[in-house]
Amino acid sequence: MFNFKVIAESTTSRARAGMIQTAHGTIETPVFMPVGTQGSVKSLTPEELSAIGTQIILGNTYHLYLRPGCDVISRFCGLHRFMNWGGPILTDSGGFQVFSLAKFAKVTDEGVEFQSHIDGSRHLLTPEKAIEIQTCLGADIIMCLDECIQYPAGQQDTQAALESTTQWAKRCKHAWQRNANGHNALFGIVQGGMFKDLREMSVDALVTIDFSGYAIGGLSVGEPIDVMLDIAEFTLPKLPDMKPKYLMGMGTPENLIELVAQGADMFDCVLPTRNARNGQMFTSKGTMNISNSRFKLDTNPVETSCTCYTCRNYSRAYLRHLYMAKELLAHRLHTIHNVHFFIRFMKQIRSTILTDTFDAFKKDFYDKRKHDCLE
Amino acid sequence: MFNFKVIAESTTSRARAGMIQTAHGTIETPVFMPVGTQGSVKSLTPEELSAIGTQIILGNTYHLYLRPGCDVISRFCGLHRFMNWGGPILTDSGGFQVFSLAKFAKVTDEGVEFQSHIDGSRHLLTPEKAIEIQTCLGADIIMCLDECIQYPAGQQDTQAALESTTQWAKRCKHAWQRNANGHNALFGIVQGGMFKDLREMSVDALVTIDFSGYAIGGLSVGEPIDVMLDIAEFTLPKLPDMKPKYLMGMGTPENLIELVAQGADMFDCVLPTRNARNGQMFTSKGTMNISNSRFKLDTNPVETSCTCYTCRNYSRAYLRHLYMAKELLAHRLHTIHNVHFFIRFMKQIRSTILTDTFDAFKKDFYDKRKHDCLE
Repeated sequence: MFNFKVIAESTTSRARAGMIQTAHGTIETPVFMPVGTQGSVKSLTPEELSAIGTQIILGNTYHLYLRPGCDVISRFCGLHRFMNWGGPILTDSGGFQVFSLAKFAKVTDEGVEFQSHIDGSRHLLTPEKAIEIQTCLGADIIMCLDECIQYPAGQQDTQAALESTTQWAKRCKHAWQRNANGHNALFGIVQGGMFKDLREMSVDALVTIDFSGYAIGGLSVGEPIDVMLDIAEFTLPKLPDMKPKYLMGMGTPENLIELVAQGADMFDCVLPTRNARNGQMFTSKGTMNISNSRFKLDTNPVETSCTCYTCRNYSRAYLRHLYMAKELLAHRLHTIHNVHFFIRFMKQIRSTILTDTFDAFKKDFYDKRKHDCLE
Repeated sequence: MFNFKVIAESTTSRARAGMIQTAHGTIETPVFMPVGTQGSVKSLTPEELSAIGTQIILGNTYHLYLRPGCDVISRFCGLHRFMNWGGPILTDSGGFQVFSLAKFAKVTDEGVEFQSHIDGSRHLLTPEKAIEIQTCLGADIIMCLDECIQYPAGQQDTQAALESTTQWAKRCKHAWQRNANGHNALFGIVQGGMFKDLREMSVDALVTIDFSGYAIGGLSVGEPIDVMLDIAEFTLPKLPDMKPKYLMGMGTPENLIELVAQGADMFDCVLPTRNARNGQMFTSKGTMNISNSRFKLDTNPVETSCTCYTCRNYSRAYLRHLYMAKELLAHRLHTIHNVHFFIRFMKQIRSTILTDTFDAFKKDFYDKRKHDCLE
């Protein structure tokens, strides 16, 4: 079960608000998806994720395939029951991690051979296998296997990677039609590096194959932000408007608001969770590092206007103390705040699209940061 | 505000059920106090502690004095507001950690000089200072500074340490009368190592000074369990029955049930929290190590009859996966289960004292372990 509709569009930008229906619930877009790499959004329970307003989480196929493995997760009929999360789940194809985490990754016609970063064991990930694993994980939205190329890369290498990606997308579609058609939705991933002509080729090829949604991959891989925004701005309008558009691995609040303005509907990023564990807190005035000694005696919450559990109950001084003392609770309280910040931010963006005040919200967002920088 | 009354006594052992009233609430005894070393029971929120049934937590004066320090905690009028825990708190005097954690500890007439294990800074902890710090922390029950002697120790060394402990107890009482009389309760700590005559001397001296409650310190420091139980059995009946009797740093479920049978009312231990982080789970049939490969595909909870959040929602297979993948959530879910186990165990013990069926409960407790060992 999968359905997407646009319910409002900004008149001053390409920003749009939509609804995605899945078997595990409805998702209001634009949406930010917290990352639950190994079957857990680090340090949080599903109840906390729900309380924060999380609509959908992302699981990493590469990690879950290697550990605990499909034999374990299939005992629970998928990731939902295994990790006790009743809402929608999107899984990536494993491609990105194979190319960034595995000990080596070798592309062949069949797929990609790699060695596990955990125990060095050898594996072959094919398009068919990527669909099979994601089907076993029981995700609501699954992704095609793609070849992620390092940045910077020349046009020839980028084109070769794109050709694999296109061939694999076709095979993924066939495998999906055989395996899981109807139970979940399959998204294609646009590649093409920083070359607009290749991005356009990729869009055309994927749209011909026809997917339930389209992601833009291969961005936020080290390129300058203006290059990323330029490629996104070029690519997003070429994707079919009646399908969800997903910007993979994004991003900072600044990235998110710009990409929403360009018409993106879905985002995922480890930024709120990873930075929480490093003591970096997101606020409407910018980021703050909780370890800063000026918070030692600070009885205020991280952000007075914030309604998250952490800000309702704990001071900067207490959070700083937990962080300096390496207390486990620090990670939790920081993660709750940061994920809440990202989720609330996207909800605010959505509500301004519904009232067609997105541009004013965007201006205000930048003004707040300009006038009172926390760091 | 402090009041203690015994409300039921076992007719077949010295076990008793009581009530302690403090400014932050009533405590039903016998009670197990989870340890919140640095202003946090590791990985848990106060709400989780309450949901588990925690009545009182312990804070470590040594740790909190060094980090974040009294200047920080006094901004919050004490530990309760700082850490957002509204229930009773007991703080130790810092003595035990000075002798076990600090870089060096030198006893003088004044008190004990030591070097911080965090930054090497030098400090002098006197009986008066111990009362001052604990008063600043705002604990409901505070402890006298005592000198903990290493095990094994000869009679002469033990007697010397006991003499300091007795002198310091007098000075603590005076300091408490000047500083905090009425706002909290001061407990004396019986020392005397493994020498019964010294234990008796210690009891007599402390009872003459007169405290709101009495703790037995210097046990569970490396001596054999039968020696520990022998010293406890000798000492506990000598303490005044109208005052709470607190066995410090105890213990395993087996220790707890034996010490309750001997008349102890209060316990604290890092066992449920520390072992949780090492993957050891407590159950009515004994302990189990969640990393064991036979739990890989196990869809059962840790203990089917357990009503904790972890057992109601997660399988052994999921917990094992989180633990093997070093996910932060593992620590939390394991800690919830273990602390719940200890708290529920003490509640069960108390209810059997109220109905005078404690002996049958104790027999059943050992039978369960005999017949079905999990490890």
